[in-house]
Amino acid sequence: MNHYVSHLEAAIDGTVLPFGQLANMHNARPIWVRYHLDKIKSAVTPAQIAARAPSLWRYRELLPLPFDVEPVTLGEGMTPVLHCARLGKQLGLSQLFVKDESQLPTGSFKSRGMAAAVSMAKWLGVKRVALPTAGNAGGAAAAYAARAGLECFVFMPHDTPVVNQFEAQLYGAKAFRVNGLINDCGKIVKDGAERMGWFDLSTLKEPYRLEGKKTMGLELAEQMQWALPDVIFYPTGGGTGLIGMWKAFAELKELGWLRGATFPRLISCQAEGCAPIVRAFDKGERFADLFPNAHTVASGLRVPVAVGDFMMLDAIRASGGKAVAGSEAKIGAWMQRASSAEGISTCPETAVCFEILERMVAAGEIKPDARVVVFNTGAAPKYLEAMPYNLPALDKDRVDWDAIARA
Amino acid sequence: MNHYVSHLEAAIDGTVLPFGQLANMHNARPIWVRYHLDKIKSAVTPAQIAARAPSLWRYRELLPLPFDVEPVTLGEGMTPVLHCARLGKQLGLSQLFVKDESQLPTGSFKSRGMAAAVSMAKWLGVKRVALPTAGNAGGAAAAYAARAGLECFVFMPHDTPVVNQFEAQLYGAKAFRVNGLINDCGKIVKDGAERMGWFDLSTLKEPYRLEGKKTMGLELAEQMQWALPDVIFYPTGGGTGLIGMWKAFAELKELGWLRGATFPRLISCQAEGCAPIVRAFDKGERFADLFPNAHTVASGLRVPVAVGDFMMLDAIRASGGKAVAGSEAKIGAWMQRASSAEGISTCPETAVCFEILERMVAAGEIKPDARVVVFNTGAAPKYLEAMPYNLPALDKDRVDWDAIARA
Ligand SMILES: Cc1ncc(COP(=O)(O)O)c(C=O)c1O
Ligand SMILES: Cc1ncc(COP(=O)(O)O)c(C=O)c1O
Repeated sequence: MNHYVSHLEAAIDGTVLPFGQLANMHNARPIWVRYHLDKIKSAVTPAQIAARAPSLWRYRELLPLPFDVEPVTLGEGMTPVLHCARLGKQLGLSQLFVKDESQLPTGSFKSRGMAAAVSMAKWLGVKRVALPTAGNAGGAAAAYAARAGLECFVFMPHDTPVVNQFEAQLYGAKAFRVNGLINDCGKIVKDGAERMGWFDLSTLKEPYRLEGKKTMGLELAEQMQWALPDVIFYPTGGGTGLIGMWKAFAELKELGWLRGATFPRLISCQAEGCAPIVRAFDKGERFADLFPNAHTVASGLRVPVAVGDFMMLDAIRASGGKAVAGSEAKIGAWMQRASSAEGISTCPETAVCFEILERMVAAGEIKPDARVVVFNTGAAPKYLEAMPYNLPALDKDRVDWDAIARA
Repeated sequence: MNHYVSHLEAAIDGTVLPFGQLANMHNARPIWVRYHLDKIKSAVTPAQIAARAPSLWRYRELLPLPFDVEPVTLGEGMTPVLHCARLGKQLGLSQLFVKDESQLPTGSFKSRGMAAAVSMAKWLGVKRVALPTAGNAGGAAAAYAARAGLECFVFMPHDTPVVNQFEAQLYGAKAFRVNGLINDCGKIVKDGAERMGWFDLSTLKEPYRLEGKKTMGLELAEQMQWALPDVIFYPTGGGTGLIGMWKAFAELKELGWLRGATFPRLISCQAEGCAPIVRAFDKGERFADLFPNAHTVASGLRVPVAVGDFMMLDAIRASGGKAVAGSEAKIGAWMQRASSAEGISTCPETAVCFEILERMVAAGEIKPDARVVVFNTGAAPKYLEAMPYNLPALDKDRVDWDAIARA
């Protein structure tokens, strides 16, 4: 046996689907990858995994790529979990941690999903991929497609951060700006599938990005000595991060690798300018309506409609967590506050999480000694637009020491 | 014993200096850290190191920070060494590798030096640091100072890449733009030391950034199973990378951890618009004159004069390598060529290395089967100015499929 996948499963109705051929969705909804966890349990131990190289491929048994296939890799994974004593103290938390995904290739957690999805697509014979993006997924897809030698088409909203525009071209993707939002870009990708012969890599429209994202949960568990934290704050757009992590925890539980029986509460963080999951959560619904006039500087959260809405809402509710909208006005200030308190390059999406965390601690919803993990999903300098900056000028021949002292 | 440092040593004349108190330079020249390598040899083995967490602190015995002092860390180190088969083939090389430093905190190799230097400064009681920067060192210093809770003053040329300006403020540093070059900024830092009470963190003006940079060489050796490559291409500005790596190899040799007796040839790469080390190398001199009218879009190489010039030139010559100037005009194209061939986020400084590598292979100076390592010292999106980008627009309501197909 050269992999442990048992089958694919339609998330909406449990239909069993075969593994080993290209798959997108089933009934316009996402597909889960299922594993022979019993066999994995007897094949590998946490101690064996701990001795492997520090990349997400150390969890090879829990990933779909057959063992005799070389992954498409840029060395991604094992991002640090950083204890944040200073910021924690400011917030009234003694055990605040940040898992810093900004250190991944292309500067965001999107690399995890693309490493898995592009590896699988290449293995299954794909030569050309396409995707819509809020920004970071396009850069990651372009990079991994380049590494794999695949052609890549990227469609992004016209006002996507400039760094995301830059990186798509840097990696040689065929990248376009569209006068609309990510769902408009998604429609182009869907419409072009036949005509252009590309494979659709959209979030949750193929099964493997989710498996790559799942490794955030696997790493977190391993890095916390297989004891999960009490609460997780996660910025939520299309939902792969949140859903993938929840799937990881379930698989680890079934493997018997976790110490302690309880799972973390998931706090799904969105921006008030685009909060479809928050609305559905508050209304007690399982599916989320399209959020009208979506806007936020936290571009990764500008996802007005998501095919995995019910998977997110199921996970949030099962965890005893909730979905909360953060204040748009505080994003820039929180980027700088978190970055300058801890030296961690905090993206706007994560700034939203901190703003919500502060409110929840103040409201007594998070206990002072709770073990809280905030995911920093991207690198701040990818968002020059999100934080104004202006460095004072100095004349080298007449240095203004007072200005320096006053700074 | 809670560290293995034997003493500090003036690089220019061998004067022995005490360890454990603040040190800058000796006779206006850099200071080496020396270790009891014999004791380290009996205290730890490569196998023990291999079992440690994947950060540069795994080489703790070869670093100056006492073992009972917590390092100031963002989880830096163990960047991947990526085999580049496609680009290698284009260049006529079967064993081309890139060590990808763009995945470090703040997106450049400068994090290594700052992790070590800020840890040491904090331990030695410093509250306030200052430095001149070509760009990336300022961001890294700001981040590590924030993590340490130190005040940080950063001085950079007025035309430093915008991302470097952004990140210095993001991390809360007091950052200024100066109408001059890095040496003019360095003069402000020097002049302000007494008045402002800051510790000077300039390249090679304190002993510990070099020790942090040294870990590039330690990691490379470990990742290549303690067999060094045949040739290393390194972009050279102030010189800590090059000098640090050479020091690492010498220490590993004395420890007896290396397989094989030969060291790699060091190819020191500069840009033709600022190539003081190349000039001195070609003239057979040990010290380099200030390079007039320095300019290059590879901002990290815009260092017209360096206090460690003789240390670089000694290392290059001892290695049997050389110093070469790359073509300015080809930098943007090489950034895109390397990034799109391998998916590695290639900075302009490394683009210069590839351009030189291509010429040296063509000239027969590098054999087709040589094990060549190129260091990618930073992330490409930190240099929006270095590569023009322009994404074609699409109308979502009237998609121009021909434009997509032609792209
Ligand atoms: C930095 C960042 N954070 C969070 C998200 C949202 O992630 P997901 O789509 O997995 O919910 C994105 C998506 O673009 C992102 O780029
Ligand atoms: C990306 C990059 N590469 C190379 C260099 C040159 O490094 P060094 O000063 O160690 O020679 C720098 C320095 O600023 C840099 O930022």
